[in-house]
Amino acid sequence: MFFHVKELQYNAKPSKPDPVYAKKLQEILGGQYGEMSVMMQYLFQGWNCRGNEKYRDMLLDIGTEEIAHVEMIATMIAQLLDGAPVNDQEDAAMDPAIGAVLGGMNPQHAIVNGLGAQPNDSAGYPWNARYTIASGNLLADFRANLNAETQGRLQVVRLYEMTTDPGVRDMLSFLIARDKMHQNQWMAAIEELEESQGAVVPSSFSPEHEISDVAYSFMNFSQGEESKTGRWARGSSMDGKAHFNYVQQPEANGQKPQLNPSPPYMHGTPPISDGGPAEMNH
Amino acid sequence: MFFHVKELQYNAKPSKPDPVYAKKLQEILGGQYGEMSVMMQYLFQGWNCRGNEKYRDMLLDIGTEEIAHVEMIATMIAQLLDGAPVNDQEDAAMDPAIGAVLGGMNPQHAIVNGLGAQPNDSAGYPWNARYTIASGNLLADFRANLNAETQGRLQVVRLYEMTTDPGVRDMLSFLIARDKMHQNQWMAAIEELEESQGAVVPSSFSPEHEISDVAYSFMNFSQGEESKTGRWARGSSMDGKAHFNYVQQPEANGQKPQLNPSPPYMHGTPPISDGGPAEMNH
Amino acid sequence: MFFHVKELQYNAKPSKPDPVYAKKLQEILGGQYGEMSVMMQYLFQGWNCRGNEKYRDMLLDIGTEEIAHVEMIATMIAQLLDGAPVNDQEDAAMDPAIGAVLGGMNPQHAIVNGLGAQPNDSAGYPWNARYTIASGNLLADFRANLNAETQGRLQVVRLYEMTTDPGVRDMLSFLIARDKMHQNQWMAAIEELEESQGAVVPSSFSPEHEISDVAYSFMNFSQGEESKTGRWARGSSMDGKAHFNYVQQPEANGQKPQLNPSPPYMHGTPPISDGGPAEMNH
Amino acid sequence: MFFHVKELQYNAKPSKPDPVYAKKLQEILGGQYGEMSVMMQYLFQGWNCRGNEKYRDMLLDIGTEEIAHVEMIATMIAQLLDGAPVNDQEDAAMDPAIGAVLGGMNPQHAIVNGLGAQPNDSAGYPWNARYTIASGNLLADFRANLNAETQGRLQVVRLYEMTTDPGVRDMLSFLIARDKMHQNQWMAAIEELEESQGAVVPSSFSPEHEISDVAYSFMNFSQGEESKTGRWARGSSMDGKAHFNYVQQPEANGQKPQLNPSPPYMHGTPPISDGGPAEMNH
Amino acid sequence: MFFHVKELQYNAKPSKPDPVYAKKLQEILGGQYGEMSVMMQYLFQGWNCRGNEKYRDMLLDIGTEEIAHVEMIATMIAQLLDGAPVNDQEDAAMDPAIGAVLGGMNPQHAIVNGLGAQPNDSAGYPWNARYTIASGNLLADFRANLNAETQGRLQVVRLYEMTTDPGVRDMLSFLIARDKMHQNQWMAAIEELEESQGAVVPSSFSPEHEISDVAYSFMNFSQGEESKTGRWARGSSMDGKAHFNYVQQPEANGQKPQLNPSPPYMHGTPPISDGGPAEMNH
Amino acid sequence: MFFHVKELQYNAKPSKPDPVYAKKLQEILGGQYGEMSVMMQYLFQGWNCRGNEKYRDMLLDIGTEEIAHVEMIATMIAQLLDGAPVNDQEDAAMDPAIGAVLGGMNPQHAIVNGLGAQPNDSAGYPWNARYTIASGNLLADFRANLNAETQGRLQVVRLYEMTTDPGVRDMLSFLIARDKMHQNQWMAAIEELEESQGAVVPSSFSPEHEISDVAYSFMNFSQGEESKTGRWARGSSMDGKAHFNYVQQPEANGQKPQLNPSPPYMHGTPPISDGGPAEMNH
Repeated sequence: MFFHVKELQYNAKPSKPDPVYAKKLQEILGGQYGEMSVMMQYLFQGWNCRGNEKYRDMLLDIGTEEIAHVEMIATMIAQLLDGAPVNDQEDAAMDPAIGAVLGGMNPQHAIVNGLGAQPNDSAGYPWNARYTIASGNLLADFRANLNAETQGRLQVVRLYEMTTDPGVRDMLSFLIARDKMHQNQWMAAIEELEESQGAVVPSSFSPEHEISDVAYSFMNFSQGEESKTGRWARGSSMDGKAHFNYVQQPEANGQKPQLNPSPPYMHGTPPISDGGPAEMNH
Repeated sequence: MFFHVKELQYNAKPSKPDPVYAKKLQEILGGQYGEMSVMMQYLFQGWNCRGNEKYRDMLLDIGTEEIAHVEMIATMIAQLLDGAPVNDQEDAAMDPAIGAVLGGMNPQHAIVNGLGAQPNDSAGYPWNARYTIASGNLLADFRANLNAETQGRLQVVRLYEMTTDPGVRDMLSFLIARDKMHQNQWMAAIEELEESQGAVVPSSFSPEHEISDVAYSFMNFSQGEESKTGRWARGSSMDGKAHFNYVQQPEANGQKPQLNPSPPYMHGTPPISDGGPAEMNH
Repeated sequence: MFFHVKELQYNAKPSKPDPVYAKKLQEILGGQYGEMSVMMQYLFQGWNCRGNEKYRDMLLDIGTEEIAHVEMIATMIAQLLDGAPVNDQEDAAMDPAIGAVLGGMNPQHAIVNGLGAQPNDSAGYPWNARYTIASGNLLADFRANLNAETQGRLQVVRLYEMTTDPGVRDMLSFLIARDKMHQNQWMAAIEELEESQGAVVPSSFSPEHEISDVAYSFMNFSQGEESKTGRWARGSSMDGKAHFNYVQQPEANGQKPQLNPSPPYMHGTPPISDGGPAEMNH
Repeated sequence: MFFHVKELQYNAKPSKPDPVYAKKLQEILGGQYGEMSVMMQYLFQGWNCRGNEKYRDMLLDIGTEEIAHVEMIATMIAQLLDGAPVNDQEDAAMDPAIGAVLGGMNPQHAIVNGLGAQPNDSAGYPWNARYTIASGNLLADFRANLNAETQGRLQVVRLYEMTTDPGVRDMLSFLIARDKMHQNQWMAAIEELEESQGAVVPSSFSPEHEISDVAYSFMNFSQGEESKTGRWARGSSMDGKAHFNYVQQPEANGQKPQLNPSPPYMHGTPPISDGGPAEMNH
Repeated sequence: MFFHVKELQYNAKPSKPDPVYAKKLQEILGGQYGEMSVMMQYLFQGWNCRGNEKYRDMLLDIGTEEIAHVEMIATMIAQLLDGAPVNDQEDAAMDPAIGAVLGGMNPQHAIVNGLGAQPNDSAGYPWNARYTIASGNLLADFRANLNAETQGRLQVVRLYEMTTDPGVRDMLSFLIARDKMHQNQWMAAIEELEESQGAVVPSSFSPEHEISDVAYSFMNFSQGEESKTGRWARGSSMDGKAHFNYVQQPEANGQKPQLNPSPPYMHGTPPISDGGPAEMNH
Repeated sequence: MFFHVKELQYNAKPSKPDPVYAKKLQEILGGQYGEMSVMMQYLFQGWNCRGNEKYRDMLLDIGTEEIAHVEMIATMIAQLLDGAPVNDQEDAAMDPAIGAVLGGMNPQHAIVNGLGAQPNDSAGYPWNARYTIASGNLLADFRANLNAETQGRLQVVRLYEMTTDPGVRDMLSFLIARDKMHQNQWMAAIEELEESQGAVVPSSFSPEHEISDVAYSFMNFSQGEESKTGRWARGSSMDGKAHFNYVQQPEANGQKPQLNPSPPYMHGTPPISDGGPAEMNH
């Protein structure tokens, strides 16, 4: 169960309205790596956590914090939209500054949301649940989380570069710091799990059931061998169980596929005799 | 530019048809972490790669291999659908085995695809491009890739458990081995980049512009302190620049938000006087 | 900012696993009118609320409660999936009960989520943000909310009919009661706002700018006049400003549209001379 | 079965082209609360109506009218796009007015639709069927309909404010009037059904099966008690069966969830012993 | 403007309920090539038609007919769902026939739609507007239409094979015949336009601006030369302007791409010196 | 299995950056009829091809070529984004040219992709697999392919008109020529199949099972008889089996639908007695 306090976790006060920037800021609210994504991802991972209370508690801690981040950004966006001009094109043509605002705004911020934040990204695309993962394997999911915080911080930093508003930058400075912590946090949790479980997920699958001779080979499917100089092509493997090797000319070891004709009740194309399909009922 | 050879990278031959399993196998073809996702993700990362030929070449190597994995699984699915029964419910009721098949099949495999594979997941949901990322920051993207190979291998292993068909298992054994390599590969590439760039992405953002006093704090937003015992709450941080600390009772440091009324041309709800909104034009 | 307590708002304990019912229960978690929808809808309406603290506070109260409902249903689903069979089809064919389970389960519950809840509906379709609305007009949004609680309670009641598990029914009995309150709540809030603002949204648009002679007419576009006997076709209008009237044979009062040809640089079909399009460059 | 007449229900003639406004107008054509949504919603409700001919007829009357509204707006948009400039950026930079048009247009109006309307919203997002509901319960659906006409009229009014074109405003004045009628209509139909069925949907569910002591309680999950002063927190309930009460400090009455470990064939994270997960096969 | 008559265009009466078949039949209602798609596609093409009244009238004729087809199928589905069992799993396990029904039904037909049709496909995926096209070029669009009627008739025929219900088959026999007409219709319209415009769309683009030496070449990018024996690799081209030729070993004639480094404010990966990226700020 | 060569199939070098045009060019990369669509469509048709090696080989030839087209356009977009300005609005207001760029760019090109191409269309909507078809009937699918190349070439030609950059136009000239070949190719393959299979798909369905008296009738559902003058309304049918006829006043031959009431456990609206629904349990 959850409780809400009125104050934000950190200030979210722009110096002045900027409806074009409001559109851009939507990316870290309702985008693929926005705060809604990490919020839902951590909460579902926590709720689905089976028998590891330390991790469940941690996931619900951070999932709950992320709701507060959604709240901060939504609040910021609503203020950036304060008094946005929605006049017609004629006025805009006379004042290039207004024209730039009108051309760059998300029209739904006015028409649909009445100058409020929306749960969409900066292209106006709605958030959807396929952005999240809760796999039931914590090491797998912590890698998803590290990725999310990595992409997320990168996007916040880029948005920091795209404004000079000190109030907006202040809030972003907070989020950038929290994302630094969260990258550190998932790296720590990953290290902890890798130590006991091994590096390859899932560690519980027996290696006997793998085609082991391709389990440590880098295959060169693209002309040129620049890829040969990478760490992935030489030295001991990262799981410490073998050595990487480089396959300069990978071979096709499978069959040349030939599918059976489909049954008549499927009304596919029948097998073709020389020069054209066989006689049909027509 | 690309070329195709007819033989598959590895065999994809089921022992017998199994249209219910064909539906499940769609997950690793067109699902969030299926082969289409990694194929598109690696190719776009390679094509967008700016000035690092070793990584560009490597990305196009593995992206090109993944097209072959899509091909193998599509071929397998088409064969699992061979001669699938599509009779009416009456027959099914008389033969529970047929009933189970009919109830468990994806009806689109027959109606839409004529017993062919489709670029969808096991729930019949179409693959979409938001499953992929190419951020222009390689360390960020390699973490996305490690996550994808981790979730992907976990799913293939689960599918291995869900069949006893030796032909299907043979193909999955190959994919499970390749995914082991690919997890190793991304771990190696990540280590290489972290060594020169540091662990927190993006490393090029100056720490002065962060609210540094929250950059290494774990915050306890969920009742109970089980989360305090994790690696993320004590010891030196993973980026080696500070120590983790645990905030037992996080405080709200932001403002209590109060938004301005919207302008009249937005036709929002006007500010409310005591007991109800102010007089309006009606 | 938000805090979490470990206990659920109400018990969510099934008597025994039932993975087929778990699939169905997803509807009220991640469906169009599931708990995720009302949670996000109320929170965004609260965060976007401009200058009406009573309503903002109320929206955040109920939005915060809804997070707890998401939590309860996710927890229930994870337990309904406990130990779900994921064996191959052969076993299933021998045991009709297992076959029914396998055919009726959502395969992603095993493959993707490792027997955990997912933020999707009962057809496996992911939750998306277009399910929610926050328009900046509270009366408009409270009608959206009343609709959501109405559809939602109807769905919970249907799910109650679809199980006999006393533990599941116990939780649903709680949700059904809360949805009764929430229908009552929105009706109360609507009445309060309608009293001061009038019944037609937005009330702030001047009637002079409407084509007033069609503002209270029911138009009979479908053969037969059964619709004439409804309340909407006679008596005073619900906003108390006019009388309904019934237009037996509505007329088309607009132009017969004729669009201009498109400019050459659009490469559309040029205007057609008698018998065929004009000469073109080919 | 349906028939079409060539004339529009009302005039749809802009005074002059305005491709930027054409983009905005898409919202009420293919948006969440646009005319396509109400058209499909009313038609499906009518087609699915079981045994209540008065309502079926009424739903098909209004559903058929809405097709005509889609037609009017599509026609308007095509004319607003007449001769839209699609030149390159260089020209645009020289003429700010053209630049504003180019920046503000939806590029698909030219590239994909050749200056025609598209079934998308103002952000370019395609209409989809999850915008509609037909639940089989008329009172539930009429509330959905009242909400749709409420949000819809609000959006049309906002679009009226965003243009000064007298031809566009004329058409919007017609739609605003029809939406006034349609709000009135659904209020009338709701009143009629509530009188016989009661206010809480579904009325056919027995109150004995509800946890009745939470069925009329407003719960204060958000710090501060502004919400206490609302109509929803005191006085008799809207269904006339009880009194509202205000729960100042809601309690968690459910269990503290603890899920069982997942079975080995799911390859989840095993239960953790002190300090880390138990030994695993690696 | 549109009018509705109560009678269906043709009978839609099943002999008995069949909720599993109802799910399958959704494909031709709300699927990619279902009746909703052709209905919306023809109507939008008609509404956007610029200056060719014969085609506009024809498009609105057939678009209006398709609304009636949506109506017939929706009516059929609602009847196939009559009295569908929605009991719990325990009963189902005891009666395999009921189990097959429960496992094969779309649960939303009960939970969301109360035994009514829904605007979705047979996988439960909602119809969306990206299924349609209205390009402003009639020859382009008539090819889209021929494709839609071709895929559509193929699907209806497959559904015919999947039932023995004489009532259902009767309705499908009508739709199959209409789809035969509609394939003929679009072939006729295409022939008419190709005669005046030429076969390659758009015919109005000057051949001088094409790289003409690849405009009639079949390129062999896949190992093996079976493709050489097709009509597309020899003889005169279909537009009658040249001869097909077969390129046995296509060459890459473009540059080897090398992208510039991204600017610092993008925080991408900097160019790599030998063995690793250059020094960075960390 | 696939191999990659480093050189592009044809040059993709813009004369100078143009981030606004980069947004537009996305349409033919990740749009409904972009190169990703034909690439996936041809590959899946090839992989699913049952027993017709000439067609399988041809499909994989062209599918493999299309991967190279995706590569070319992605490369072009990345270069068009070189050094794109992402400054704040204030600068933009002072320089209309920069303002036009900022207003017209896709913000995700900077925030999400770090100046790289993305697998989306020009409205920022992600590519999805419902854009493709592989039906198992080659004639059906070749019509889909002809449509795709037709719409695709039309879009490329429009994009050619929207730029004056000689480098961009050079690449488009190549694609326009290849699309001419591909239209020719599919016309050739269609002719070949129609000759042996007949023109109506599927030809294998027996005409006895159709309602033959509507199989060649054009029905006039829209007021006015302009449609009577088309080729589709007179003369022999395109399949050569009958003559077209024109039905001036089509009749409704089906039943007037009346659905049964839903069962009580569905909690729908009960049948209505005179003046309102029957007594209910409330």
